[in-house]
Amino acid sequence: MSTFKKKEVNTMADKQDSAYKLTAEEYKKIKDEMEVRLSDLQQKIIKAKIPVIVLFEGYATSGKGSAISSLILNLDPRGFEVHTTRRPNETEERLPWLQRFAVRAPELGRIAVFDRAWYSGLTWVGADQGEQEMLPYLEDINTFERQLAADGVVLIKFFLSIPKKEQKKRIDKLKEDKNTSWRVTKEDERQNKHYEQTERFYKAMITVTDTPYAKWHVIYAKDRRYTRAQVMQTVAEALEAALANPPKADVEGPVQPKVSDRFHLLPAPRIEDVDLNQVMTREEYTEKLDALQDELSELHNVLYNKKIPVVIAYEGNDAAGKGGSIRRVARALDPRGYTVHPIAGPTPTEKAHNHLWRFYTKLPRTGHIAVFDRTWYGRVLVERVEHFTPTWRIEEGYQEINEFEYMLHKWGCVIIKFWLAIDKDEQLRRFQDRQNTPSKQWKITDEDWRNRDKWDQYVEAVDDMIKYTNTNFAPWTIVEADSKYFARIKTLQTVIDSIKKRLGK
Amino acid sequence: MSTFKKKEVNTMADKQDSAYKLTAEEYKKIKDEMEVRLSDLQQKIIKAKIPVIVLFEGYATSGKGSAISSLILNLDPRGFEVHTTRRPNETEERLPWLQRFAVRAPELGRIAVFDRAWYSGLTWVGADQGEQEMLPYLEDINTFERQLAADGVVLIKFFLSIPKKEQKKRIDKLKEDKNTSWRVTKEDERQNKHYEQTERFYKAMITVTDTPYAKWHVIYAKDRRYTRAQVMQTVAEALEAALANPPKADVEGPVQPKVSDRFHLLPAPRIEDVDLNQVMTREEYTEKLDALQDELSELHNVLYNKKIPVVIAYEGNDAAGKGGSIRRVARALDPRGYTVHPIAGPTPTEKAHNHLWRFYTKLPRTGHIAVFDRTWYGRVLVERVEHFTPTWRIEEGYQEINEFEYMLHKWGCVIIKFWLAIDKDEQLRRFQDRQNTPSKQWKITDEDWRNRDKWDQYVEAVDDMIKYTNTNFAPWTIVEADSKYFARIKTLQTVIDSIKKRLGK
Repeated sequence: MSTFKKKEVNTMADKQDSAYKLTAEEYKKIKDEMEVRLSDLQQKIIKAKIPVIVLFEGYATSGKGSAISSLILNLDPRGFEVHTTRRPNETEERLPWLQRFAVRAPELGRIAVFDRAWYSGLTWVGADQGEQEMLPYLEDINTFERQLAADGVVLIKFFLSIPKKEQKKRIDKLKEDKNTSWRVTKEDERQNKHYEQTERFYKAMITVTDTPYAKWHVIYAKDRRYTRAQVMQTVAEALEAALANPPKADVEGPVQPKVSDRFHLLPAPRIEDVDLNQVMTREEYTEKLDALQDELSELHNVLYNKKIPVVIAYEGNDAAGKGGSIRRVARALDPRGYTVHPIAGPTPTEKAHNHLWRFYTKLPRTGHIAVFDRTWYGRVLVERVEHFTPTWRIEEGYQEINEFEYMLHKWGCVIIKFWLAIDKDEQLRRFQDRQNTPSKQWKITDEDWRNRDKWDQYVEAVDDMIKYTNTNFAPWTIVEADSKYFARIKTLQTVIDSIKKRLGK
Repeated sequence: MSTFKKKEVNTMADKQDSAYKLTAEEYKKIKDEMEVRLSDLQQKIIKAKIPVIVLFEGYATSGKGSAISSLILNLDPRGFEVHTTRRPNETEERLPWLQRFAVRAPELGRIAVFDRAWYSGLTWVGADQGEQEMLPYLEDINTFERQLAADGVVLIKFFLSIPKKEQKKRIDKLKEDKNTSWRVTKEDERQNKHYEQTERFYKAMITVTDTPYAKWHVIYAKDRRYTRAQVMQTVAEALEAALANPPKADVEGPVQPKVSDRFHLLPAPRIEDVDLNQVMTREEYTEKLDALQDELSELHNVLYNKKIPVVIAYEGNDAAGKGGSIRRVARALDPRGYTVHPIAGPTPTEKAHNHLWRFYTKLPRTGHIAVFDRTWYGRVLVERVEHFTPTWRIEEGYQEINEFEYMLHKWGCVIIKFWLAIDKDEQLRRFQDRQNTPSKQWKITDEDWRNRDKWDQYVEAVDDMIKYTNTNFAPWTIVEADSKYFARIKTLQTVIDSIKKRLGK
């Protein structure tokens, strides 16, 4: 199908309407064919576990609803959802702007139909604050769509275009009937009045977000039958192309992390070069603990008041003391302002989504603190060592994670990342202690022992992880954790320092 | 533990503070003991798959946050969530008021800690509209808590009480520090000013909602250590009691639906007595279809405009034509204003909740239409026939469903329920047709044939279902579906009539 850039169909004046029109008969023929073809394709998509997004954007009154109808009435409702988009509510406003769309991404084999979705925000930004404000949003959109596509999501984006006069006619008609007049918003009328400006805006938007992985299909939507037929045909062709596209074969061999030079990476030590054997007496510990908890407690109030969100990510060797360290941080916090998210293996639903999806669902609201006990770094740790994920996807993971954290950073989030490191002998001592203490036995599993057997592979994975994700906006802190006291104090102190830095204190 | 009614601890004036106070030493002893006991109990609760709700309500500044902390710091974060409560956002305001709490009920084996939750609404209602307005909410709460308890949810409710003077002191102290002053709301100050009125309000609330399945534990919370100790001990005792309580044994035998006479049941025919063989010509069908779809299309606008929600529930024999009938309704609707929810067997997450939970997550917003292809009646149909659920829980299901629908009705929802009935021979013809037509084969499964073998048991279950849930606010419509044309027109007509009735047309 045509893209905006190639055909410039959006410049209406010189278009012959007759080329974008269907008779009732012509339409009926296409529709009947499509009913069978789309229904059949949907079954194949389900079987092939291909996730699909069909997105509709366009001028007010351009017929997005009718176009969506023509598509979904051919589909089995067990395989799709329709997501309409309104302005964000208060809860959504306290999360990164893409969050509410990211969590609605389709599972494997499902079709998500979006009415406007992440492009709607642009219009509001454009209308409320001026067009130049939309650049950071466009950047987020392209990153987001590229990440979806990397997982095999088929992205089909429609832009429905109608000329100024036609829009005016439709608005007037809606306003005449009291049962439809409420559908016309002030924004719609403003759009028609400033049609030329809107057109420039949309052109820029489409140009920048028309990418190889997420093309725009611009439809001249004056004729409803023509529009519906175009939508059905385009979707059918895109699904057929996706089904014909064989899944990318994995290549065996060492993982070579891929990161763009878009982000500045800070130098970082290798775990092997860090002296893990730091010492702290019980006395020093209790004294410092108390003072630091008081300080953090007060900072929590300030954060809440200033509505600054905080993410604290804990990674580390098994038995390195993450739980005990998290508890010392948690004790200083108001339970209504923080959540600890323990991260285990993904559930089937989580597995059917992008690897970052389950973290989008757990982001803190502004002013809140989210503590992750294990994190999105599972992608480049356990998934890498255990070969749960194809090598090429792992390699892309580093960049995806940097982008995810950059999104949090832009949103205003303080990001604190810990690697709690213990040496191999210390781990053995702790494993044995857990096994010999009845009340601690639930803490140790066969998996812990299996992981231990892969110690060297983990060291390699951790070194790569720190090297390629040690950005200036989300730096790693390596915590020498052979001494629990030392580790707890260092994490607490780091949390406090990071927050104070953000507060300019 | 004491309940409000028995001890009247809420009348502060005559209390000796010394009886509700702990020294640092006394507290430390309890705390150390509790750390082990609660942590151990949590592991047992997880194993026994017991869901737990711990809810905190109380006067402003009574220390709910600190009390929650003292509890959760003893728990493994992999087993609990804390839910704080604010005023409902715009999305939540367009759903039944309990919805946002119902969807947060804990899964089997998990502990949900609620800060205020469904009682917070009462305070706002009381403050905004006068106390008598809270009665319908109290009714909803008792129903909701009873339904949770029926599934084995352990409900532990705390009310933290402090005297007027103490509250004043705490408010003043918070206001002194600029990092905490924002915590004091106008409502808090109003509460202190009108303390006596607040006390009357809380007394009434506690009295009415102190039930055998959801007792209140009122704590005189002037001393923080005493409060924390009380909370830990009460939770420990409640968990121990729950663990000691053996699961209710199921009794074999015929299902005897239990419904209270709280709702008025309309008389209903038995399926066997309905003449399913209605006839409609293709001509009559196409003519009526077009007119009815136009009419429904217009009504959809009115519904949207008046923000009236609609639930359309489709049940029926396998192959009775639910899908085709739903599609004829859907064609008349704007896709941005309705959703079709196909209901299959529950997922593991859904199974770990009350049977109505997964429907709470799918309710329409005001002004929207939710169409259910199979429904919450699975409880008294497939679960009854296949013995998926203990008999006594099935028997309670009828009343629970009536209550669920009554909640929707009170909220302003139009409820339309269809049973699409075909006779046994007609079903055989359709099954064979599906099996012989390649494009329809995915529609027929072995399960359909197995269900057919249980035809008589289903007839019995359907008769009971209609008899015991045919309320005047959510009546059943039996659709004679041997003729697909007739059935589609009848469902469309019924949808239109029900909406018009609601609109007073």
